[in-house]
Parts: sequence; C-alpha cells; structure tokens
Amino acid sequence: MLPITATFLDEISHDIPHQNWGAKEWDADFSHMKKMGIDTVILIRCGHKKWMTYPSDFLEKTENVYRPSIDLVALFLSLAEKYKMQFYFGLYDSGKYWWEQGDYKKEVEINLKVIDEVWEKYGESPAFKGWYLSQEVSRKTGNIMSLYHRLGKHCKAISNNLPTLISPYIDGKKAILSNQSSLTKTESISIQQHEKDWNEILDSIKNAVDILAFQDGHVEYHELTQYFSINKKLAQKYSMKCWTNAESFDRDMPIKFLPIKWEKLLLKLEAAQKAGLEKAITFEFSHFMSPQSSYVQAHHLYNRYMEKLISIG
Amino acid sequence: MLPITATFLDEISHDIPHQNWGAKEWDADFSHMKKMGIDTVILIRCGHKKWMTYPSDFLEKTENVYRPSIDLVALFLSLAEKYKMQFYFGLYDSGKYWWEQGDYKKEVEINLKVIDEVWEKYGESPAFKGWYLSQEVSRKTGNIMSLYHRLGKHCKAISNNLPTLISPYIDGKKAILSNQSSLTKTESISIQQHEKDWNEILDSIKNAVDILAFQDGHVEYHELTQYFSINKKLAQKYSMKCWTNAESFDRDMPIKFLPIKWEKLLLKLEAAQKAGLEKAITFEFSHFMSPQSSYVQAHHLYNRYMEKLISIG
Amino acid sequence: MLPITATFLDEISHDIPHQNWGAKEWDADFSHMKKMGIDTVILIRCGHKKWMTYPSDFLEKTENVYRPSIDLVALFLSLAEKYKMQFYFGLYDSGKYWWEQGDYKKEVEINLKVIDEVWEKYGESPAFKGWYLSQEVSRKTGNIMSLYHRLGKHCKAISNNLPTLISPYIDGKKAILSNQSSLTKTESISIQQHEKDWNEILDSIKNAVDILAFQDGHVEYHELTQYFSINKKLAQKYSMKCWTNAESFDRDMPIKFLPIKWEKLLLKLEAAQKAGLEKAITFEFSHFMSPQSSYVQAHHLYNRYMEKLISIG
Repeated sequence: MLPITATFLDEISHDIPHQNWGAKEWDADFSHMKKMGIDTVILIRCGHKKWMTYPSDFLEKTENVYRPSIDLVALFLSLAEKYKMQFYFGLYDSGKYWWEQGDYKKEVEINLKVIDEVWEKYGESPAFKGWYLSQEVSRKTGNIMSLYHRLGKHCKAISNNLPTLISPYIDGKKAILSNQSSLTKTESISIQQHEKDWNEILDSIKNAVDILAFQDGHVEYHELTQYFSINKKLAQKYSMKCWTNAESFDRDMPIKFLPIKWEKLLLKLEAAQKAGLEKAITFEFSHFMSPQSSYVQAHHLYNRYMEKLISIG
Repeated sequence: MLPITATFLDEISHDIPHQNWGAKEWDADFSHMKKMGIDTVILIRCGHKKWMTYPSDFLEKTENVYRPSIDLVALFLSLAEKYKMQFYFGLYDSGKYWWEQGDYKKEVEINLKVIDEVWEKYGESPAFKGWYLSQEVSRKTGNIMSLYHRLGKHCKAISNNLPTLISPYIDGKKAILSNQSSLTKTESISIQQHEKDWNEILDSIKNAVDILAFQDGHVEYHELTQYFSINKKLAQKYSMKCWTNAESFDRDMPIKFLPIKWEKLLLKLEAAQKAGLEKAITFEFSHFMSPQSSYVQAHHLYNRYMEKLISIG
Repeated sequence: MLPITATFLDEISHDIPHQNWGAKEWDADFSHMKKMGIDTVILIRCGHKKWMTYPSDFLEKTENVYRPSIDLVALFLSLAEKYKMQFYFGLYDSGKYWWEQGDYKKEVEINLKVIDEVWEKYGESPAFKGWYLSQEVSRKTGNIMSLYHRLGKHCKAISNNLPTLISPYIDGKKAILSNQSSLTKTESISIQQHEKDWNEILDSIKNAVDILAFQDGHVEYHELTQYFSINKKLAQKYSMKCWTNAESFDRDMPIKFLPIKWEKLLLKLEAAQKAGLEKAITFEFSHFMSPQSSYVQAHHLYNRYMEKLISIG
C-alpha cells in the first residue's frame, strides 16, 4: 500500500461538521499525524464565502468576510514548524463568483490579492512550502484552465517557485453533491473522455501547476486502477507529479459523511501503489482517521491503518 | 456576546435522535447547564403524536397516546428545583390536527384540557414558572393567531399569570424541513413582509403571549442584525419581551443535525447582544453543547463557549 | 417484554457505516452480547457485491469479488464457540442479479455454490447452527419464492437439516430506501393484502424455510400488534417458528440511522411478547446497542435495556 504521508486540514469546512477544536486539540492532532507518518498538511481553503481561517484586511473590505476569533493559518504554520511538516496554503473560495455566477475572472482577481496578502503575512515561516489551488472541478468547467494558470503562475512567482497543487475529481458515478440524498448518478464520464479532457486541461496549465492529486472517491473501486494509470501517464507527459487524494470518508453510506471502511481505504492505497503514484494525501485525517476524532469509527480506522503500516515495515 | 442562560429540553424529540438518558444522566446534565449559567429550562413539548413525557389520563383516553415509562415532567421539575432553575412547560403537539388537517380548533381544545390536567398535577412545584406554546410557525399559517391567543390566555388565567413564550422561525432561505436533503430554498420572505406579518400576528396575541423568541437559524448570518432589530421593535410595540432562540446545531451541513461551528454561534450571540435582545435560549444544550452529549463536537463547543464566557468576565 | 436473545452481525454492511473493528473489538462485543442474554448471532450476509467476509475462491473467480484481509466468518465462528452461541450464516447478496437485473435464477445458482463452499470450509464448527437467506423482500417480488425454496432446500440438505431463517419487511409507510431523504411514503400495503401475499409466499416455501422473523420498523407503532398476530398465525399455519426482528435503530429521524429511542424499542418488544412471538433478534447490537458502539446513544440504550431486563427478573 502507498502510505498516507499528507492530509488536508478541513478548515474552513464546506460540508463536514466542525469539531470545535482549540489550539490544544490542534496541537495534539498534529502529534497524532506525525506519529502516523504525515509530513505534509494542506489547508483546504483559507476562506469560504464569509468564513475565514485568518484575519484578511483585504477580504473584509471587499467581500465583507468575518474576522475569525483565532488565526488558524498562524496556528497551523507554528504547528507545522514544531512537528517539522510542510504546509500548503489553500486559496480563497468565494463560493459565489466562479461557482454561482460563472465569473472566473473575478475569482482570480480576488485571489491574486489574497496571495499577495498571505505571502506578506506568512511567507517568512519556514514551514510555508506550497500552494493549493482550492477550486475543485472534474471537467473543463467554465474558465477553470485560465483560473489555474493565472493563480498558479502568481503563487510561484511571488514565492520563489514554491510548488502548486490541484485536486480535481473524476466525474464518475459517485460525483454527487453532498446535500443530495442519492449516492450515485446514472450518467458518468467514460475513461476516454476523462483522458481527453484532462490532456487538454493539463496542457494549458503545465507551467503553473506542479502536482496533480485526483480525489479517489467518485468511481467504482474496480475502476480505480485504470483511472490511476491514465492520471499518472498524463501527469508525466506534462512533467507534473502525480499524487492521490485518498478519501478517508465513505461515499457509499446514507450519512454524509462518516469514516470509511478500512478495507476500502486499503484497496485504494494498494491500487495507488501499483499504479506508481508518488504520494498519498488523505481528506482528511482530523475527522476521519484521528484517534481524537469526534467519530469513534476514526479511532478504529487509525488503529487498523497503523497495524498495516507496521506489518509492512 | 449575549450569554446563553436558557435551554430547551428536547423531549419529546421530533427530529433529533434520542440519547436514551435516565434520571442519573439528566441530573448530571442539569449540573452542567447550571455551571454554564443556565437558569431556565423549557420543555419543547409535553408530547408529540403518541409519545409523551408524562402520563396523561386525558390524552390516553382521547388520543391513544402511550404511557411513558418515566415521568419526565416530574423529573425535570425536581431537577429544576434542585438546581434553582425556572421550568417552562411546553404544550402538546398532536402533529396531526393543526399540522396535517389544518384543524387548529381541535388542537386548541385538546390543549385546553392538557393545561388543566398539567396544572393540577404539577402546578404546585415552585419551579413551574411559565408556559411554552409549542406550535411553531413562520407566517400567519392557518388559525395560528387564534391558537396562540386562546392557549396563552388559558395558561395565564389558570396559573396566576405565569409568562407565556413562543418561538417562531423566520421564513428565510434555510427554512427547510429536516427530512428534506437540500439546505436552502430559492424563495424566501423579504424583511418587509416579515415585519408586516408579525406586526399583525403580535397585535392579535398581545395579551396572551409575554415573550417572543425567534429561532435564529433560518436566515443568512449577515441578515441577522436586521431581523433582530425588527423583532425587537415589534416586541416592544406590543409590550413583549424579546429573547433569541440561539440554535446550537448547524443548518449548513448535510448531516441533519450536528453541533454548530463555534464561530457561527458566537456571531449570532454577538448580533443578539448588539440588537439589545434580552435573553438567549439555546436549542438545545443536551445534544449540542453538553460535555456529556453523544456528539463529541458538543464537548468542544462547550469548552469554546466557556473560554469566551470567562474571557468577557 | 420479549427479551432480545439474538442479533444480526452487520458485516458486510449495506447502509450502516463501518466501525472498523479488529479481532479484539469483536471479542469484547461478543462478551457484551453474552452479558445481555444473546445466544444467537446471524451474519447478515457473507458478501455484498464485491465486498466479502471470507475468502471465496469461487466468488473471486466468477464475480471478481475482493479478498478480505481478515476472515470474519472464521472469527465469528470461533467467538460463537468461545461464548457458546449459535451462529447462522447469511448467504451472498450480489446486489446485482436479483436486485438490478431481476435475474433470480442467477442469484440462486451462485448461492448454491457458495453454500457448498462455505459448508466445506466451516461446516465442522460446532457453532454453525443455521442459515440466513439474505435476500430481503416485502412482497412477491420477482421469483423470490423460488429463490427461498431452492436455497433453503439446499442449505438444509447439505447440513443435516439445520434451520433456515428469512427476515422480510412489511411494505408499510416507512418502507423507504435508506438513500432517500423522506421518512414515509403515502402508499402502503393494507393488512389484508399483507396477509394474502404472505399466505401465498409461505405456502410455497414451507418446507424450505423454518423461521420467519419480520422486521418491525416499517409500520406505525400502533399497527404492530395486528401485524404481529397475522405473522404469527401464518407461521403456525405452515409450521414455521415466528420470531421478530426488533430494529434498534430509529427510522423516524433525518439521520439514517442512529440508535432508537428506548421507549420505542420497549413498546415493540412488549407488543411482540403479547402476540406470542417466540424469539427476538435485533438489527443490530454492535452499532445500536453495544456499550462500545461508536454511537454513544447506544451505550445508554444498553443501560436502559439492562435496567428493564433486571427489573422483570
């Protein structure tokens, strides 16, 4: 199995209920991550709509976002320093301009300023090691190629070429919005169309994005090997790294979402290993794999994972 | 922030899964409430359809309700006495006459008898301090004005004028039935229409209802200040007290429902403070804020709340 | 109340999230079951689609199922031996042939081979005491009568007449798929039609099925007594035993599913007692009633149940 060595930090959360942790609980969680072998943490987004992880003068003025009572970016950076991890900063997701209004240009313009502000505020932290372009798509939606291109370029330019990461999803049977009750849809993409689409997308963003980490939860388990191979081939073609985003929550259950069955996660990590993917991120440790998660199923998932990790040396 | 000094007791629950507590757990929970500063507990309803909190000879005979194995009204009153709290009694909700059949008159007639029965059984408890009219609406639905008027009047007449409370909701974007999977709807009320409706409703029930405590979870967070002001103004006009019902569960998540993100609750309590609301009830402590809740997120919410409470003195 | 003396083991789960237990947790859970008086455990199914509880050479070859990392059938049998319980083996559910394609014959053919394989592998265990025909229906769906007949006959023939069990559901108001958000439907079966259907079904499977255990969660609580009586009468007519499958999760809540309110379970077990049903299975102990369940509400349900059990001697 490809070991999990990275995790998203799901703050601000979009569809996973908050655990209401303070600084103490976050410190403990980073120590649990470290023990499991995690060396990289990726902030899923620095803000969503009006909710923020850090106090942004710029977004407060232009988007009327709320000032958070704790600066999570500062906290996560200090913990990443303490535990010798790499921190990737996730860009702002308006949940509005690109998503509701199809205005990708506005989404880009805001984020260019956010990148400036954030690099100014936090760029000196030795743990600040990369950028996550947080707008997630499965197809050539709107002007996503231009968005990735412009934001990736700016991130790299301002930060002495720190790596940029995207984590798209496959438009498979399980590509369902989390507030829909169904679990699958009847129309899904073919592997040929997926390859064609992403060949085109990657071609257009090849100098702006360094790492491609597809989410692994939207297709049937037996389809994974084939998709992993295509993704790997495409990434190589455009000189990108190919990671996997191993979802540790279960998309097959009516409760959206609780921790995944261990055997499903294992199967996905073994398929990723076979396909030669280079690193596994999970979405995400703190809710779905942590020994201190509010979901007790996560504690057992952690134990099953650690048993396996130890057994394979 | 306006501190939370009251909570609903969600027995009989309508859409929140039961925790299956016995007398020992309820005693512990009241002690947790007390420690947080709660001085008032409000039984959300004494019965719903056939499920009851107390043995009602009247409803067993007329509505074939079930006899509960524990008399929760007696238990809650004794705990309220022990912990020096005020107890408000929530009326019976048939879930049928007013809700399915539009027969508000029948709902009133049953409840007039319930009021008599309950006052006879429990009226001597020194903790019995008020009444909750449990039929919740957002508009001039059916004959709700007459229902509030007649029930409120009778409650007050029989109990030497104990206060009566209603907790309506705003017909906002998030006014969605809990068994629907979506989180928002496209049509919602305007602030002008809300004011017009409630001006009319309050006018017609002004001598029967003493306290108005709107639920705070059905509009966008940035709309709250405006709605709070309107509600306060209307309450003053009709000489009612204006409280807020600060929901401690999260309406923005696909799991319906888990504890709210602390920052959202804080924002609502700060807005309530600014608008001059007089008291905050939460719906509700035992599932969503208690250190012994089955939802671990609630334990952390309790800690965050207490840290804030202590920090502001 | 009719005491609960049997439970399903919900592996492989279809719609209840996994707890990710290992051998240690399962051992502890069997000891909890034993303490509650459980003497019979019933594997809900040995496999579902591609997920398996035991390594099946046959299904790996023919259906491309996955090899599990732990042989749960061997584990459960050894624990049943240790705790002196009877183990019933649940057949394979393809989730495809009978369910999606209406091909009951194929479902039968596969399972005939599974029965052979399983009896060969595990038949010598002294705890192997019966079979569960895992395809669950509420009406004369497709060729379900032929499926029950052929599979039941073969189970009994190969195993020196070990008993066979089915657990259908009533097509009542609450017969809703778990991935639908609604809680009730408007069309439901009449008691007369239920009796007519099941008279016909039971007549055609009378020598192949020994035990009839209807699920008790799909009708209104006040309808249970009548359905229990009909079911008992029909079972007697065809010389079957009549058990009840007492669901310990709550079908009335938007979260699908959490532990049931204790009073609801008690009401059902009392109605089963009155109707003279012979044994109560629960679906299922490990998620919804266990003191070590990931759902804390289950811990309290266990305590309430034990208090009652002790009080009635």
